[in-house]
This record gives sequence, C-alpha cells and structure tokens, in this order.
Amino acid sequence: MQLSASDRELIRQVRLLVFDFDGVFTDNAVYVNQDGVETVRCWRSDGLGLSRLRETGRVEMLVVSTEENPVVTARCRKLKLSCFQGVADKAARMGQLAAERGLPLARVAYVGNDINDAGCLQSAGLPIVVADAHPDVRPLARLVTEVPGGFGAVREICDVFCSVLSEPR
Amino acid sequence: MQLSASDRELIRQVRLLVFDFDGVFTDNAVYVNQDGVETVRCWRSDGLGLSRLRETGRVEMLVVSTEENPVVTARCRKLKLSCFQGVADKAARMGQLAAERGLPLARVAYVGNDINDAGCLQSAGLPIVVADAHPDVRPLARLVTEVPGGFGAVREICDVFCSVLSEPR
Amino acid sequence: MQLSASDRELIRQVRLLVFDFDGVFTDNAVYVNQDGVETVRCWRSDGLGLSRLRETGRVEMLVVSTEENPVVTARCRKLKLSCFQGVADKAARMGQLAAERGLPLARVAYVGNDINDAGCLQSAGLPIVVADAHPDVRPLARLVTEVPGGFGAVREICDVFCSVLSEPR
Amino acid sequence: MQLSASDRELIRQVRLLVFDFDGVFTDNAVYVNQDGVETVRCWRSDGLGLSRLRETGRVEMLVVSTEENPVVTARCRKLKLSCFQGVADKAARMGQLAAERGLPLARVAYVGNDINDAGCLQSAGLPIVVADAHPDVRPLARLVTEVPGGFGAVREICDVFCSVLSEPR
Repeated sequence: MQLSASDRELIRQVRLLVFDFDGVFTDNAVYVNQDGVETVRCWRSDGLGLSRLRETGRVEMLVVSTEENPVVTARCRKLKLSCFQGVADKAARMGQLAAERGLPLARVAYVGNDINDAGCLQSAGLPIVVADAHPDVRPLARLVTEVPGGFGAVREICDVFCSVLSEPR
Repeated sequence: MQLSASDRELIRQVRLLVFDFDGVFTDNAVYVNQDGVETVRCWRSDGLGLSRLRETGRVEMLVVSTEENPVVTARCRKLKLSCFQGVADKAARMGQLAAERGLPLARVAYVGNDINDAGCLQSAGLPIVVADAHPDVRPLARLVTEVPGGFGAVREICDVFCSVLSEPR
Repeated sequence: MQLSASDRELIRQVRLLVFDFDGVFTDNAVYVNQDGVETVRCWRSDGLGLSRLRETGRVEMLVVSTEENPVVTARCRKLKLSCFQGVADKAARMGQLAAERGLPLARVAYVGNDINDAGCLQSAGLPIVVADAHPDVRPLARLVTEVPGGFGAVREICDVFCSVLSEPR
Repeated sequence: MQLSASDRELIRQVRLLVFDFDGVFTDNAVYVNQDGVETVRCWRSDGLGLSRLRETGRVEMLVVSTEENPVVTARCRKLKLSCFQGVADKAARMGQLAAERGLPLARVAYVGNDINDAGCLQSAGLPIVVADAHPDVRPLARLVTEVPGGFGAVREICDVFCSVLSEPR
C-alpha cells in the first residue's frame, strides 16, 4: 500500500481502529451446511498482525457488525477483539464508541467493504476499504488494501500501522 | 453489466424473479464430509441485495431447484426466500407460479447456470445466466452477470434491478 | 477439448470409464477439522454429466481409489457410482474389472491426476488426465480436460462422451 | 523450482526437514464455524510426496508450530508426521531438535511462510519459503516453491528432494 506523508500523519493520529467483519476478516463467503450451520473463511495470519499492533499500545481495535452472528463471536474471541453485533446504525455506534473514549472521529479509522459501511467510511477520520470492496463505497475510502478481504487485508492494515508507528520522527 | 434501453424496459416489466440455486447462489461446489453431510459456499452480500430489491416492493423473488436438498432450505430460510425443490420440470413449475400470480411469462425473469435451466431460460421474458454458466445455455440468455455464481451474481442482479427501478422516468 | 477423428473413434470403443477420486472429482484439497473429520470439495454439476452419460447405456462408470476414505464412499453413493477403495495396485484392479466384464483394456478409459495413476494411464485404451494433473503423468494421457479436477473435469468428460456418442455415423 | 549445483549439494546434506504448519500445509485460511470449531484446507497430494521422501530413509521430517491447535494434530497424525506445537521460540526448538539428533544446523532445512519463521529461516542450513510467503521473510530463503502453501508446496519440496536424492553422483 502506497502511503503519502499525510496518510502517515493520519495513521499516527488514529487511536481507535474499527473493523467490519464479513468481507474484511472473511472473503465474503459463507458456508452453509444442511442444518443451517454457518462457517466463514478467515485468514490465519490476521492474528499475528493484530497481536503486533496491539503490542504497540497505540491503537484500540474492535469489530462492529450489522448482523448478529455466532461465527463473528467465535472468531473475535479467538482474535481477542471486542465485537458489537446486531448494529443497525453502524455510524451512530462508531460515534458513540469514539465519544465514550473521548476521541474525535478524526482519530478513528474504519475498515469496510460494502454499502452498509458507507456511513462509517464517511465519518471516520481514516476510511479504509479492502481491495475487493463494492464499487459504490470505494470512492469513500482514503486507503485501499492491496489484498482482498479474507486474504490478509486485516494483516496488511496492521502491518502498515506498525510500520508507520515504528518510524523515527 | 451493460444494459440497453430495451433491457431496462424489460427489467421494469418484471414482477417475478426466479432463481436456480446451485451455481447461482453458490459457486457450484459442494463440500461433502465423511458422513455425507453437504455444505455449500454462498456469498454473504447477496442478502443485502435481496433485501434492497425486496424493499422496492416491485418484484417477488423465489428459488426453484431440481434437487431436493436441505442446504437449499437452510440458505433460503436465512435469505427469506420461498423455495420450490425437487422440481423435475422447472419450466412447467415456473409457468404455474406465474399463472397463479396472474402474470404473463413476459413479466418473469429467470436466473440459471446449466442445461437443466434451458427450458426456463427459453420461456422467461428476461433470461439471465451467471458469468460462468455452461456454454450450452449462455446463448439462451439476454443478460449475463459480470461475476460468477457464488461470487455476488445474485447481488449484481439485485443491484441492477434496484438501479433501473430507481431511475426517473 | 479438441478431439481428432481417432480420439472420437477411441471414445466410441469405450465401455468402461474408470475414475480416480481425489483431484478428479475434487480440487485435490482436503478440509480437516479439529476432530480429524475430513471434507472434500466436489463439483455439483458433475452429477448431471454422469446422469446423462449413464442414460446412453453405452458406458459403465466407476471409481477406483488408493486410499480408503469415507468421503469417497459418501460422494460416490450420492452420484450412484460403484467405488473400489484401498486399492494398492490400481492398474491390476482395473485390469481385473475389465476382465470380469469381458472387456479388453482397449475399451477402458481411465481418468487420473497423479503419479499413482501412472499404471492405469499406461494400460487403459483411453488415458485421460485433468488440466491440473501432476507434470509427471501428463505425457501419459491422450486427452487432457480443459478445466481442473473439482471444477467440472468429470462433467467435461461426460459431456464429451455424450457429444461423440450422439453423433450420426 | 530451479536448482543450482550448490542447492543440490545443500539438499543432499539435509537430514532433518522441519515444516511450519499454517500457510505451508494450508493456504493460510482457517474456517471457523458458529461453535468456534476450526477447519483448515490441506493438499491431498502432500501425503504422497511425504511418503516417497520418507521411503528414501534419508531425511526425517517434522512439524513445529507456534500455535497449539487440534487441527495440526489431526492433520499430522494422518500424514504420520511428529509435530511440536505451542512453541514460542521456534528457532530454539529447532536447534534443540537438531542437537538431540547430533546434527549441525547446516543439515537442517526449514520451510516457513511468515515473520514468526524468521529465526528458523536464518539459522537453518537450507531455508525454504512457499511462493506466497510474507514479503518480509522471502529474502531469508534460499529456495522458494513455485506453488503456494496448501496448493502442493509440501509436495513440491518432497518431489525436489526425491529427485535430487535419486540423481547418480
């Protein structure tokens, strides 16, 4: 991901990094078996990126999802991420989460992939979409990952943050 | 998907949108475990497209499938789609479903991917196939999605319908 | 798949079509869960091809696999294919199966993808490999499918057989 | 994989071949169901390569993994590979495993894909990464597989070893 000097400055401002789940942590597929049990496909190495970024102590990370879904709970537990599900108005919830932390939205980054992320992308200080985001929301993003959701997009974002935060100033 | 003026007019006429399941909602793969339990791979964002098109109140949507399969039941329940399974003659059933609604076949769109969809594609007013449909049925379609089945083909069709139906006339 | 006149003649001679399973009916992946339960990924439309070829009444089809694996049993039951598993020497077994039917090996076609198929490919009258077969066995094949195993290779072979068998002579 | 004369000599020296698991035996995806049960996608033909290399009697093979995960246990049992899991410092453990066998690290090959493999790649006599390894560790490798992890990378390495070990000297 190519970053301008102002992109780097924006990244340094971020204190809260909010992720959508489906299409970001996953490739947007859902596997459904004959009993209706759902499975999603995640990227093993996302965990390593999240751990490294967490260790910097600079950015809190969490997941906000429209749907209420036990696979999200299961994956977030493994990744030690707080998740807020069944959120009809994600932009309002993101605003509330920022306010609770005393953060202006300028210090919030949001990562999404579809039209129900439009509100968050428009209000976050650093809007990010995955490489395979819906064409309607791509123009709303400042940064676009090089890899698609579920193929290391979360890892890529964490790596970029870690790289910028470790630069001498 | 590029649409001509007459394609748009056809879309505006449609009141019933009938989908095949395998290869349209899925990538045509079936995952089989050692107990014979089947799983299919669907596209999470298809649901968002179906919801938006449903909200227009203009088009009824349903699924007609040759096979009788509990994964179809499970996925359709989640997507709030009526489904008719174990249908040996899909064209006859589609005709019957249209007749019950007092609709001529000109007002029915059908989405398929394989040779057992040939009859429906030949009789529906708006025949559509997915990008990776079997070569024998491609020539029967008026519209072809840009993405393959199971990778957002249903979403793409819903988006196209929503877009056309929201155009000022 | 491009066929020469002699390829067509060979196909018309075939009375027994023997398939390897992994890498032919599947994409060679095996999904393993934390309890060791295995799942394979098959191609839904292979079933339609097998049914159509079976209806011609011209070719018996069956599966011979080196490994003993319940997923093979499960998938073959669904496809109504006899399967012989745990076969250490597949070429010997294929020869025996042909002999039991009073068929010379010239009237047997074999479809494989890896080095443990070499013996069968060398002795079958019509040796076929999938598009993504191991480079060591490709030279042994007379026909190569256009699509990889698990992405419709079986369907493609059935379609080719049906097409040749339906040609006027 | 193109090999120089010195690559071949290095391969002939190897007596212990250590593999990372995720991203090497798998495509780095993890499938998570709503109960948190994990599944990974492996390559069926890796087993054939491991068997053939084992039969040469020249190289011991084992798996060392950072995480403690029952899917690794399940897959390794099937492949008849010893595995060491929950290994925080993989380089130290690899050194210990070599020492226990009276082997200098020059006679150890290591196969990895991510930054937690850096230590092992730096200390092994023959460091190997898969085609889709993280860019930060690629420069540490002497050999890079042609295919990605989970798509036959292990098989490719075994084939290369078997080929070199069978060359007349």
